[in-house]
Parts: sequence; structure tokens; C-alpha cells
Amino acid sequence: MTYRDAMNGRVRREDRRGEIVRAALEVIAERGYRGASMAAVAERVGLTQQGLLHHFPTKEALLVAVLEERDQWDAVPDTPWRVDLLAALVEYNATRPGIVQTFSALLGESVTEGHPARGYFTERYTRVRQTMTAALRAAYGDRLPGGLTPERAAPLMVAVMDGLQYQWLLDPEAVDMPAAFRDLLRLLGEDVTATG
Amino acid sequence: MTYRDAMNGRVRREDRRGEIVRAALEVIAERGYRGASMAAVAERVGLTQQGLLHHFPTKEALLVAVLEERDQWDAVPDTPWRVDLLAALVEYNATRPGIVQTFSALLGESVTEGHPARGYFTERYTRVRQTMTAALRAAYGDRLPGGLTPERAAPLMVAVMDGLQYQWLLDPEAVDMPAAFRDLLRLLGEDVTATG
Repeated sequence: MTYRDAMNGRVRREDRRGEIVRAALEVIAERGYRGASMAAVAERVGLTQQGLLHHFPTKEALLVAVLEERDQWDAVPDTPWRVDLLAALVEYNATRPGIVQTFSALLGESVTEGHPARGYFTERYTRVRQTMTAALRAAYGDRLPGGLTPERAAPLMVAVMDGLQYQWLLDPEAVDMPAAFRDLLRLLGEDVTATG
Repeated sequence: MTYRDAMNGRVRREDRRGEIVRAALEVIAERGYRGASMAAVAERVGLTQQGLLHHFPTKEALLVAVLEERDQWDAVPDTPWRVDLLAALVEYNATRPGIVQTFSALLGESVTEGHPARGYFTERYTRVRQTMTAALRAAYGDRLPGGLTPERAAPLMVAVMDGLQYQWLLDPEAVDMPAAFRDLLRLLGEDVTATG
């Protein structure tokens, strides 16, 4: 095998992994993780189950890849959060119901007993609350204009983002997710320039 | 059969139905609705599957009973909502992680394709937002002290209640759900007397 062959093979393998992860995102959005089968994912990318197992030996390994993929969509790694970028993130989320549906279905399942995504979500929320707290403190010091400390504002911001996603997925016409999130930012005391 | 026999039979049937619904609440909290089996529910109440089917002919019929049970825990029927009672409801929820877990798992699943609880949650949120809007208008008129209209405050209140439940179920030590909800009420402009 030449160097070029080896590199081409690697690129094809990475492409194929990406395809599989995207198919798994779809299947989980449709059926949840517990309802998703490796067979359904394999069928969607035109692989045999054996072929799929070559890339992801277990359903849990595929879940890990899905969650890693999800994290990449959120933010540029190693960039500190900025409060004013959160409204833009919510705006962006409102353009991709598929990924929001996958995430919301997984979050819901994660609270059931022994769910393989439970550790991921628990750690993720700890980290997100800490990072938001730091971003709020950098912007406002020890108290936001609305009166809350950064520690108390952070879980509210996370809760509103998650909670709005359920209302919006169930009834997109009834809930303007970005406008509602900007409403919260204004209550907290952020100077939100976008109209809404 | 005497009248007394007939009444006793009816009471026993109602008791048994209540037992089955409570068992189903537990099984759904543990495994989600898609992961729950009629066999697991039957086993938990010491019935054969045939015996369970006598009370609930399908898994969906049992789900309907679970959702009706859940609604009863929320509020006294036909009583208008009062804003100041919502903080008490969140406080009460923090004492019953089991029912909160069942509800949160079902809400998460409801956004997946063709889920039998989707209609229930969609209608429930429409109704809850309307009822909260009316309660806020009755208390504050067309604008809350924090600046929002009742229509814009209502989805935020619902989102915070739901979103906090996930953070709290995943990490009860890290999130003080009633205190965080009171923080939101204060931002909205409610005079919240409880300390927190």
C-alpha cells in the first residue's frame, strides 16, 4: 500500500464514521437512544450490521461519538463563553430542529436508571454552569444588574435554554425561542440589542 | 351478588388500578416509556400479563392513565392558578423525585417521532401557558414589574420549571430547584416572601 492509498483509506474511514454518526443522530431523534437499534443505523448508511460494528463495536461507543459531535456544534473549543454570544447560539439552534431533537430526547432519557448518557449530562451541566458563572462574573462582577449573583443566574439560563427547546419542538409556531431567551437576558440585566 | 359485594368488587378494582398506575410510574421513571414493558409492570404488582390486560388492554391505555394521574398531582381541578402558589408547587416537586423523573423522561421522549405522549404534552403546554398568562394578567395587568407582558413571561416560567428539573434530577446537591424558581419570580417582579 502506498502512502497515498493509506491516506485515502483513512479519509474514507473518517468520512464513513461521520456518515454513521449523522445517521445515529437522526435515528436517536426519531426513536430515542433506547429505541434506536444498530440495525436501523446500519441500514441508513447502507452497511451490514457487521460493517457498522467494524467502526463502532457497541451502541454505547456510537452514543459517545454522537455526544462528542454534539459538543462540537456548540462552541469553538477553548474559547471562553461570552454572554452576548448565547443569544446567537439560541438563534442558531432555532435553525436546526434535528440536532435539538436528538439532544432533548437524550437529555430526557438520561434521567432514567443506569442510562449511559447520564454521566455525560451530569458532567456537562456542572461544567456549563461553572463556565457561565465565570462569563457572567467577567461581564458584571459579583452581581448582575437584575440583582442575581452569577452563581444563581447560571442555572436559570441553562434551564430556560433546555425548557424552551421542549416547548418549541412540540409547537414551533407557538414559541419564539430566541425572543424568549432574549427576554430572560433582559431580566437578568443584559443589554440585548437585537429586536424581539 | 349483593350490593355490598358489588361495591367491594368495584373498590378492589379501583385499588388495583391505582396500584398498577403507580407501578407504571415507577417503571417509566426507570426505563422510559419505550423501554417499559407490560411484563415489567405486571410483575411489579404480582399480576400475570393477562391479568394486567384485563385492567389496561394496551400499553398506551396505561400511559393515558399515568398522564391523568400526573395531572391530578399538580393542582386542584377547576381552581384558577395563582402565581404565588407556583413556588409552593416547585417546593413540593422537590420532595418527590420519582414523579418528577417519570414526567421528565416522558417529556424527553415526547419529542421523538410518533410518540403517544406527544399530543398530551403539546396540548398541556398550550393550556399551561394560557392559564399562566391569565393568572399573571389577573395579578399584574398588562405588564409585570420586571417589564414583560404576561404572554412573554409564561413560556419562561414553564421553561425554568422543566429545565431545572433535569439539572436537579441529574445532580440534586448542585441545584436548589425551589430557590432558583423563586429567583425567576423575583426577576419577573413577584414579591416572593420565602427566603432562599
